[in-house]
Amino acid sequence: MHSTQNFPQEALPELLETYREFVKKELFPIDLQVVSGPFRSFLPQLETLRSRAKIIGLFAPHLSKEEGGVGLNLVQFAQVSEILGQSPIGHYVFNCNAPDIGNMELLHLFGSEEQKEKWLKPLQKGEIRSCFAMTEPAHAGSNPVHLSTTAVRKGDNYHINGHKWFTTAADGAAFTIVMAVTNPYAESPYHRASMIIVPLDNPGYHLVRNIPIMGEAGEDYLSHGEVKFENCIVPAGNLIGLEGQGFALAQERLGPGRIHHCMRWIGICERVFDLMCKRALSRELDLGKPLAEKQTIQNWIAESRAEIKASRLMVLDTAQKMQQFGAKAVREDISTIKFFVADVLMKVIDRAIQVHGALGITDDTLLSFWYRHERGARIYDGPDEVHKSALAKSILKNYASDGK
Amino acid sequence: MHSTQNFPQEALPELLETYREFVKKELFPIDLQVVSGPFRSFLPQLETLRSRAKIIGLFAPHLSKEEGGVGLNLVQFAQVSEILGQSPIGHYVFNCNAPDIGNMELLHLFGSEEQKEKWLKPLQKGEIRSCFAMTEPAHAGSNPVHLSTTAVRKGDNYHINGHKWFTTAADGAAFTIVMAVTNPYAESPYHRASMIIVPLDNPGYHLVRNIPIMGEAGEDYLSHGEVKFENCIVPAGNLIGLEGQGFALAQERLGPGRIHHCMRWIGICERVFDLMCKRALSRELDLGKPLAEKQTIQNWIAESRAEIKASRLMVLDTAQKMQQFGAKAVREDISTIKFFVADVLMKVIDRAIQVHGALGITDDTLLSFWYRHERGARIYDGPDEVHKSALAKSILKNYASDGK
Amino acid sequence: MHSTQNFPQEALPELLETYREFVKKELFPIDLQVVSGPFRSFLPQLETLRSRAKIIGLFAPHLSKEEGGVGLNLVQFAQVSEILGQSPIGHYVFNCNAPDIGNMELLHLFGSEEQKEKWLKPLQKGEIRSCFAMTEPAHAGSNPVHLSTTAVRKGDNYHINGHKWFTTAADGAAFTIVMAVTNPYAESPYHRASMIIVPLDNPGYHLVRNIPIMGEAGEDYLSHGEVKFENCIVPAGNLIGLEGQGFALAQERLGPGRIHHCMRWIGICERVFDLMCKRALSRELDLGKPLAEKQTIQNWIAESRAEIKASRLMVLDTAQKMQQFGAKAVREDISTIKFFVADVLMKVIDRAIQVHGALGITDDTLLSFWYRHERGARIYDGPDEVHKSALAKSILKNYASDGK
Amino acid sequence: MHSTQNFPQEALPELLETYREFVKKELFPIDLQVVSGPFRSFLPQLETLRSRAKIIGLFAPHLSKEEGGVGLNLVQFAQVSEILGQSPIGHYVFNCNAPDIGNMELLHLFGSEEQKEKWLKPLQKGEIRSCFAMTEPAHAGSNPVHLSTTAVRKGDNYHINGHKWFTTAADGAAFTIVMAVTNPYAESPYHRASMIIVPLDNPGYHLVRNIPIMGEAGEDYLSHGEVKFENCIVPAGNLIGLEGQGFALAQERLGPGRIHHCMRWIGICERVFDLMCKRALSRELDLGKPLAEKQTIQNWIAESRAEIKASRLMVLDTAQKMQQFGAKAVREDISTIKFFVADVLMKVIDRAIQVHGALGITDDTLLSFWYRHERGARIYDGPDEVHKSALAKSILKNYASDGK
Repeated sequence: MHSTQNFPQEALPELLETYREFVKKELFPIDLQVVSGPFRSFLPQLETLRSRAKIIGLFAPHLSKEEGGVGLNLVQFAQVSEILGQSPIGHYVFNCNAPDIGNMELLHLFGSEEQKEKWLKPLQKGEIRSCFAMTEPAHAGSNPVHLSTTAVRKGDNYHINGHKWFTTAADGAAFTIVMAVTNPYAESPYHRASMIIVPLDNPGYHLVRNIPIMGEAGEDYLSHGEVKFENCIVPAGNLIGLEGQGFALAQERLGPGRIHHCMRWIGICERVFDLMCKRALSRELDLGKPLAEKQTIQNWIAESRAEIKASRLMVLDTAQKMQQFGAKAVREDISTIKFFVADVLMKVIDRAIQVHGALGITDDTLLSFWYRHERGARIYDGPDEVHKSALAKSILKNYASDGK
Repeated sequence: MHSTQNFPQEALPELLETYREFVKKELFPIDLQVVSGPFRSFLPQLETLRSRAKIIGLFAPHLSKEEGGVGLNLVQFAQVSEILGQSPIGHYVFNCNAPDIGNMELLHLFGSEEQKEKWLKPLQKGEIRSCFAMTEPAHAGSNPVHLSTTAVRKGDNYHINGHKWFTTAADGAAFTIVMAVTNPYAESPYHRASMIIVPLDNPGYHLVRNIPIMGEAGEDYLSHGEVKFENCIVPAGNLIGLEGQGFALAQERLGPGRIHHCMRWIGICERVFDLMCKRALSRELDLGKPLAEKQTIQNWIAESRAEIKASRLMVLDTAQKMQQFGAKAVREDISTIKFFVADVLMKVIDRAIQVHGALGITDDTLLSFWYRHERGARIYDGPDEVHKSALAKSILKNYASDGK
Repeated sequence: MHSTQNFPQEALPELLETYREFVKKELFPIDLQVVSGPFRSFLPQLETLRSRAKIIGLFAPHLSKEEGGVGLNLVQFAQVSEILGQSPIGHYVFNCNAPDIGNMELLHLFGSEEQKEKWLKPLQKGEIRSCFAMTEPAHAGSNPVHLSTTAVRKGDNYHINGHKWFTTAADGAAFTIVMAVTNPYAESPYHRASMIIVPLDNPGYHLVRNIPIMGEAGEDYLSHGEVKFENCIVPAGNLIGLEGQGFALAQERLGPGRIHHCMRWIGICERVFDLMCKRALSRELDLGKPLAEKQTIQNWIAESRAEIKASRLMVLDTAQKMQQFGAKAVREDISTIKFFVADVLMKVIDRAIQVHGALGITDDTLLSFWYRHERGARIYDGPDEVHKSALAKSILKNYASDGK
Repeated sequence: MHSTQNFPQEALPELLETYREFVKKELFPIDLQVVSGPFRSFLPQLETLRSRAKIIGLFAPHLSKEEGGVGLNLVQFAQVSEILGQSPIGHYVFNCNAPDIGNMELLHLFGSEEQKEKWLKPLQKGEIRSCFAMTEPAHAGSNPVHLSTTAVRKGDNYHINGHKWFTTAADGAAFTIVMAVTNPYAESPYHRASMIIVPLDNPGYHLVRNIPIMGEAGEDYLSHGEVKFENCIVPAGNLIGLEGQGFALAQERLGPGRIHHCMRWIGICERVFDLMCKRALSRELDLGKPLAEKQTIQNWIAESRAEIKASRLMVLDTAQKMQQFGAKAVREDISTIKFFVADVLMKVIDRAIQVHGALGITDDTLLSFWYRHERGARIYDGPDEVHKSALAKSILKNYASDGK
């Protein structure tokens, strides 16, 4: 997804079709079972799928060929991301899942050579997993400048102390990137924090628990950790970029990250839409009278189709502009897609559940998994409210300055 | 809740306050833990609470004093039900939880003396639990006349065969009431089924599984069973009422049942509203700037308060009319509250989650439990769509017949 | 509607039925024509109807018998108000229309004997009309303390200067009550303004225009004036109450006023609902296939019925409490019904228009009149946003002070 | 807008900017006044603007250069249409307003040489206006096959009888195209009607009235006629295409017509959005505290921006596909944009009114005009309900046939 990458555009349709086939044939038959867990018991099977993905050249679509990937640019990857998003294990199998993909981007852009060698390369190959420790239970995530976690430089080391949660996939990860305050007296709160790599076998690091979320604590990749750093000592060389650059780097990380999330959500929408239509056609109220004949069901199908289409066009438009003009130029667009698509996602899932009736609330379909685990979509990476306010303020600021 | 019951109205406020105190002091501190399970490990503790409830005269509010209860009528009980609904273990502790309460009503009204002696009495005392097997996976629950389960009379027995699910609390129950086709050739499909009592130690009965619902299979009272009847033989005396009366009895059971559900949902709304307000006041975005200052949050609080108030007034109005004029007279009202309150419930829960941010999707509050386990509220006992159509058709029919 | 009034409760059902018949037989056949105007041309016809109302004892339902009215209390009047609201000329014919009813209440409670003799009595008899000049184009009505209109005491007179608009029914009125700043240096902005009576033949008063609103300027009672006071001199005896009491009196005026509006809106909802059902039954898509068979239409009918019912119960509950405990005790309830019912009103009208198709946007039914002229319901007497914030802040304040 | 047209793409941005300037400088200052009427009094002024548009090469953007137009293709014209839509007189001034533009397309594609000479050419030059008589008061427009208007061939003439309404801009038009049943016994109801040109000076044609719509009957171009054909005799040569082709031709006419409407609506949205933002910035609640600081207002601005963006991308995407693959290929897309954009339009207008407070419901801004006159957007050219059902059925049909 580096701006210089450019998988030949004319070959894209065929590539997309290949991904589509793989996901449909290899992942759809097993994904419900995998997410029903225990996740670890499926690791060998997932490893086999990753190997197959490598062999047929689909692995790590976002990485350059040199890095062992497919070499897609942002817009191309967005289209793959929608396809992978149709399965809850899609991004994982192709090694482009959050939070690893964000960490790969970060280390690729800002990591030292040593960091790249030690952490980035095995990550790109899918040999290890990583996580990202930012959110703290003591502070509202919607105002990220408030952090209590500190990293104090003592000699050649940082001494890190703090309490984080929603450290996605911490369980089983090899390292985390932690956001910690290094410069508490910097004038701007945006210049106080830094990103530091912490290997998770460090004795000062503790995984307190996999947080039970919406009925499941999960494990391994499918989990969100509550973690503590208690006098956790790491070499100063684990600092990414410079001290005080934490939020600047986080912005770089989040921009494309929101594109990825949005396209993944659209993938979910498509799978859910498909389940909804099939159920509407197959479930009969009376002999030969399927649910599909009910106008309310038709309304939901039509509205869902319209909203999904709107979502896709907006996200691809944003990806196109970001690729062309950079992340800063599309801040309004990013906020727009974040709250718009998250809302569509939850509405489509909700309608599909209603169409499924009792079956819809069981764990016998993927609907329940997504209803539960994507409720966070309206919260993480900035809740709806924050993005709406940010967008409006930005629009209004332009007005004021225009003298309009 | 029998129409003749009438706890002295002037003593009601104090009684309600006593329930309120009990729920707040005894249940609130433990209920999140109890529903996080395993449920069975809490049975002794819950038994202790039941004993205390009996001692202070709060047990079985719906039953007459002779039956060991408090002697409330429908409207009085509705008000208690709201209070108990604030805790997910409220109705259970006071032995007025679904599906037992419905079965008690049914057996009280239509059970034979023998059935009352054997099943109703221990149920009323809380010595056993029961369940109700109606919904079948093969048929849309929204059109209940389609049933494949059959009960064939052979000599003095019924031979029952069929496949049911969403048999709430089957795990650990002593008996189920099963809805089965006894008269397949009756002209009206509403006259084909009967209700029959099946003791669950019957060798022809099998609990296939506790259905995993929204992330949890649960156990004991907190579960929904998938069950099979395979040549399950019970004495003909286990028939409730007459052959072919199944749906007629079900209607009797459902009327007050929907009042109970709606008042329970309002109780949930109140607890959730309380959590939302407290979170809004305590969560700070910046020092001294709680979420509560945000107008969006204020909108949610105001809209929730309005909708909850509307819900309560409508349900109590319906209860009042049902008590006075009977269940038939309030069929439109019942449909109205069913879809209106279920919708309010889900909206209020959703807003509270959003106000809680990341915490809202964890299992560290009750929000996640209700978000998951009450999604069914818009589906069971008739999905929204069915009730809306039924209400509209009834209204329009009156128009047509009025010659208006 | 004075708290001491009490029309015999047992006679109420019959009285309501009499109003219902009158409205249906006398007003429904002509009201569309009357509001299509020109309004003045219908004044003789309306006068005849008022005479008839007086003769059969229905005139001025809110006034005591001594004042020539029916003697209803607030809750009783609310029920009449719903009935009258079904016709856009209902309240006018029975002389209980805004803004006259508010002015009658005000003068009854706070007017001097002289003011009562001169202004209140002819108002009560329906001999004159009045208006109320508060809102100013230069200030947001949602924060009423900002007023530029001043009334300066010079000797025995007030010299009034200012610019007002939305002075409802100014055209043809005999006097207005104007809200003007008399005490600009009072510490609290709530103590700066006063209410003063201005006869509209005063040379310092000018009706600039009847404001064109939603396509119509209207005239006479059916209009909203933009007015100017230019060195308008009135005797000091025209002050109502004391100097600086303006907002305190306005609150007294607004409390029951919002009940009246809400019940009138519910009346509109019922008429609109009736039109919607009839259209659904009579409009055929294909031979013998009326719109009423479409599930979307059924949904709208059901949702409208539910929302109207919720509205009525909430407003009557508020009226009951206000009657019993006073206006202050129900401030939260008043805010609640204001935004809840205004929203329901607009939704019901919108659905009915959609059911009517092209006919719905013509002026051939009352739908267009209400769609246009009730859009203001979400704005006047405090826009939705203000009431929601006010309600939420009040709720949250109780929390904070409870130490909850 | 003919598929072969192709204004040089590289010159488009400058052309769009020229339109933008023209609309802003020439139309914005007068449009509110013009639509406030009487419209005829503004005809000379509008004629001057048309002349200027011709001189600077902006007139008739949809026509080829040979026809005196700019030569835009569908996608290019769509972008111009959004700009013109920002003013309610935009399309009129540039002679690309409905229903004339539809009639031009129709005659261009299917008119005889004689018809083109006599009717099309003066229409293209803006010398005459036309109208289109299809909808009948006696039949639901949402099922257009039901028509009572007949055209009976007698010798060389058609004798037309029937009753139509919503014949837009009939007042002052030179001719109408009428949809009438010529082949009542054709098997398919879609093959029964034909399109016939009727000059409006025909003695058998009567303009019954300009229908009062949302408070205004309007006149001339700004009106919707109710018309009657009473033994109206026209030459057989006035038939467009063949007998029985009426609906086939109507489909051709409607496809691009819906694109035009949708882009016009987006133009309205942009103007309304602009008014909303300016009002939010300029209206102060307290000194220095503009409405814009309120989070509710910010939410509306953000949501409106998102929805407008989604609308534009979807309509342009549909236009692109229609241009490339023809109208049939985009039937689902057309239904999608029709209901989606109409809904967005009404929501954006409604929010802007609320932000404007009392001013929003006056006719002192364009908001009232659009609130009233665009309510029809959800009804004409197929109500929301019909498009949603059509879209859903089409989607589900593909499922069924896919054997998916």
